[in-house]
Amino acid sequence: MAGYYALPLELLAEQFAKLPGIGMKSAQRLAYFIISRPKEEVQAFADALLAAKRDIHFCPQCQNLTELELCPICADDKRDHGTICVVESPKDVTALERTGEYTGVYHVLHGLISPIDGITPDKLKMRELLSRIQKGSVKEVIMATNPTVEGDATAMYLAQLLEPLGVSVTRLAFGLPVGGTLEYADEVTLFRALENRTPLVQ
Amino acid sequence: MAGYYALPLELLAEQFAKLPGIGMKSAQRLAYFIISRPKEEVQAFADALLAAKRDIHFCPQCQNLTELELCPICADDKRDHGTICVVESPKDVTALERTGEYTGVYHVLHGLISPIDGITPDKLKMRELLSRIQKGSVKEVIMATNPTVEGDATAMYLAQLLEPLGVSVTRLAFGLPVGGTLEYADEVTLFRALENRTPLVQ
Repeated sequence: MAGYYALPLELLAEQFAKLPGIGMKSAQRLAYFIISRPKEEVQAFADALLAAKRDIHFCPQCQNLTELELCPICADDKRDHGTICVVESPKDVTALERTGEYTGVYHVLHGLISPIDGITPDKLKMRELLSRIQKGSVKEVIMATNPTVEGDATAMYLAQLLEPLGVSVTRLAFGLPVGGTLEYADEVTLFRALENRTPLVQ
Repeated sequence: MAGYYALPLELLAEQFAKLPGIGMKSAQRLAYFIISRPKEEVQAFADALLAAKRDIHFCPQCQNLTELELCPICADDKRDHGTICVVESPKDVTALERTGEYTGVYHVLHGLISPIDGITPDKLKMRELLSRIQKGSVKEVIMATNPTVEGDATAMYLAQLLEPLGVSVTRLAFGLPVGGTLEYADEVTLFRALENRTPLVQ
């Protein structure tokens, strides 16, 4: 960029451009927007950035992100600590909690096995999951990784790792999305829906 | 949002969601991205935000944004201070400078007349333009507002205001696509538009 930009604006735009999905043009717009806001609002934004980075850490049990000593789900005595739902990321915990139906606890892997991207099992929070299960009170581990190649591979890898520990390992059911149509379902989903068909009248 | 979100993450996502063009879903992604960055990077982002807001002000002459006492263009003796190019926003100065052909100075209005949005002439930096011209050394004022209804109306309004002051008022040539914006015009189009500028009041 040439010198007719005010330097602090240019530097701010460069910071915005580092964010995923924000190009240089959008970054410049955002920088101009920041300049147009009251001082207190900009201060609040800067404070929120620093606070999030400073206060957020992994929950020592489930490895989800939290600002508390133990995350609210792990700290909740009313939840079933004998059932662990294994997910890829904190976003998945949010999605599952939104159903309001799951009463167990979670374990966040912070990634999926992907040798092409250099993500080997030791880079994920698997050791922490094993040590939770080795304590002995866990009865079931639900693999809730995404139905992708990496998600399936990670679920399979973990299942083989956990089997000798005498814990029941299950996988989320795959089939047609509720409200979806056969016409627009992809072949793999349809195949899985067929394979996992359930009796209608019991 | 429910309470299974870490509070500092939620607060950061809310700050991102205040930015134009960023919805709550993107804001959450950005908040997670911030958490994943090294502490120094987040600190640099926060510093850039505060520095931009703290150090940027209007140039006392052309009203463009600058961190210096006088913006680099107004401070440049080699430029023709007898020719003022009037634009809507700092982005337009950047676009015109990119042509590398304009040697005069600028005046940034910081908006266009738009009665529907409550933007009347007194809300724009017109008084500052008049006082620059009343000092007597300005020979030509080039109206380089966007070729839109508001841009044309603002140019016309200013032309009528400036005519009695004995200054020549011109308008960018309509090589610009009607309905487009200066910001996205290519250099050649902008240069032709500058070269073919025509008197607004004859």
